[in-house]
Amino acid sequence: MGGTNTAFGIVDRRGDILFRSTISTLGYTKGEDYVNDLGNAINDLIENNELTNMIKGIGMGVPNGNMNDGTVENAANIPWAKGINVPLAAMVKEKTGLPCKLTNDANAAALGEMAYGAAKGMKDFIVITLGTGVGGGVVSNGQLVVGHDGFAGELGHVTVIRENGRVCGCGRTGCLETYTSATGVARTAREYLDLQPEKASVLRHIQHRPITSKDVYEAAKTGDQLAIDVFNFTGRILGETFCDFIAFSSPKAFILFGGLAHAGSLLLDPIKKAMDEHILFVYKGKTDVIISNLNDAEAAILGASALAWE
Amino acid sequence: MGGTNTAFGIVDRRGDILFRSTISTLGYTKGEDYVNDLGNAINDLIENNELTNMIKGIGMGVPNGNMNDGTVENAANIPWAKGINVPLAAMVKEKTGLPCKLTNDANAAALGEMAYGAAKGMKDFIVITLGTGVGGGVVSNGQLVVGHDGFAGELGHVTVIRENGRVCGCGRTGCLETYTSATGVARTAREYLDLQPEKASVLRHIQHRPITSKDVYEAAKTGDQLAIDVFNFTGRILGETFCDFIAFSSPKAFILFGGLAHAGSLLLDPIKKAMDEHILFVYKGKTDVIISNLNDAEAAILGASALAWE
Repeated sequence: MGGTNTAFGIVDRRGDILFRSTISTLGYTKGEDYVNDLGNAINDLIENNELTNMIKGIGMGVPNGNMNDGTVENAANIPWAKGINVPLAAMVKEKTGLPCKLTNDANAAALGEMAYGAAKGMKDFIVITLGTGVGGGVVSNGQLVVGHDGFAGELGHVTVIRENGRVCGCGRTGCLETYTSATGVARTAREYLDLQPEKASVLRHIQHRPITSKDVYEAAKTGDQLAIDVFNFTGRILGETFCDFIAFSSPKAFILFGGLAHAGSLLLDPIKKAMDEHILFVYKGKTDVIISNLNDAEAAILGASALAWE
Repeated sequence: MGGTNTAFGIVDRRGDILFRSTISTLGYTKGEDYVNDLGNAINDLIENNELTNMIKGIGMGVPNGNMNDGTVENAANIPWAKGINVPLAAMVKEKTGLPCKLTNDANAAALGEMAYGAAKGMKDFIVITLGTGVGGGVVSNGQLVVGHDGFAGELGHVTVIRENGRVCGCGRTGCLETYTSATGVARTAREYLDLQPEKASVLRHIQHRPITSKDVYEAAKTGDQLAIDVFNFTGRILGETFCDFIAFSSPKAFILFGGLAHAGSLLLDPIKKAMDEHILFVYKGKTDVIISNLNDAEAAILGASALAWE
């Protein structure tokens, strides 16, 4: 479930999406109305494909989803869940007659990687989602770390710059996400262009719309040094922060997921360099950094579906 | 097992230490000789108290102890384990005929708090040991977080000051432990005395020996403002760093353990203030900070013994 659309599908044990559909998330002021339409759409998908009584359960990836109690807790971008807690899992269960669990998007991504992706067979790893924001899904000893309140893993909001850090959407400053999200990369590019007015860059030709992380990526691929510097800066912050995460849970791997992860070695190389230079000796060379190999379009559904096997 | 002495005892299910003894850790160049003497001393304690066949197992808290494989990995302060890996658990098992598990001191402290201390009944908490160094023991979902290599929880070595941070014993700079260990507190006091030469403080009267954290504590208790400032600085760094730890595993509580924890509200108040000011909204007011109520002299034995119930 995203702020705009809800994509859903029927997934088998091997991780194949057999059937899929979407409904809009927009246009609802009450959670009941949304669940009613969603439930009907799910029931239709099941019945039309003659899979009644063959579905084990429903897993959902939801902004601010709390795995402990199945609620959506004060989700700023969902009108019917803004400022209140909505028992979404229980409501979907009642409407469909199927067991339902939910968690947030990054945790769902972690479960998806463990069930079908790069973390198959791993018991200790961390998924970092690099999109508009930055999220985290931590798996320790084969279990998702959800914490006492169900909200563990907000890794985009660890503080990486304590003095004069960038203002974050959360109201604080210096959060990882202000530097290493897609938005953060675009912000860094704009700063670099302002601070080094003499430095040539194809990014200077973008005048009539805001620079995006995709622009920076395209520029870096053609060898634009300023754009490459932006990725080096972003990767260094990620790599140094990963060293702190390693000191916490010592994962076998970080798996990078989301739009920015497509930058590949432009991002991976400075991350690995920073980790190599900064890591505590006891962890040296022990932790991999991997780009997720799950198809973006399918990963959200696969990740959520992995919850149903739990 | 410390660098100087090895304390051991026989512990019952309720956490009472029925019998206890010590041997020296010093004076051994080979692990075999140490284990031989330790094993004899353990066997004697058991036999002399007529408890043969009544012992379930042995748990050990050991510097650089790896819970995954029961080895001591390159422990700088233990001559017979410097630069090599010693399969200590297996050796003790062979000598005593009892199952043996080991982990590092901070992890043992976390298990001790869960079995007998402030974390009884908690499934998600973090123990922070504040001694000569700073250590961490993370429990998530009722399980110790040990990581893929058995060395998770080196929380004293997360980077808290990225630019011009203090040099750490690990060879890096800006580690939490350089600011918030007992040694770090003394270091801060010396810095404050140098940087504010006009400011009166009873600590200035200590001339012929190095200032210790205990001196700073005694001075702060009498209202010495410079000493109080040192604790406020220390507490703020801990509190802000705890916010990052919360974003990671969302513990119900932090439990402070070790020498510096005896500073009580001098340390707790600035920690809680910093957490309150700095915490991400979703976690606000949810996490306690507690001083361990385990007796220091017994805690090491109790913590280690908790491993044997695992």
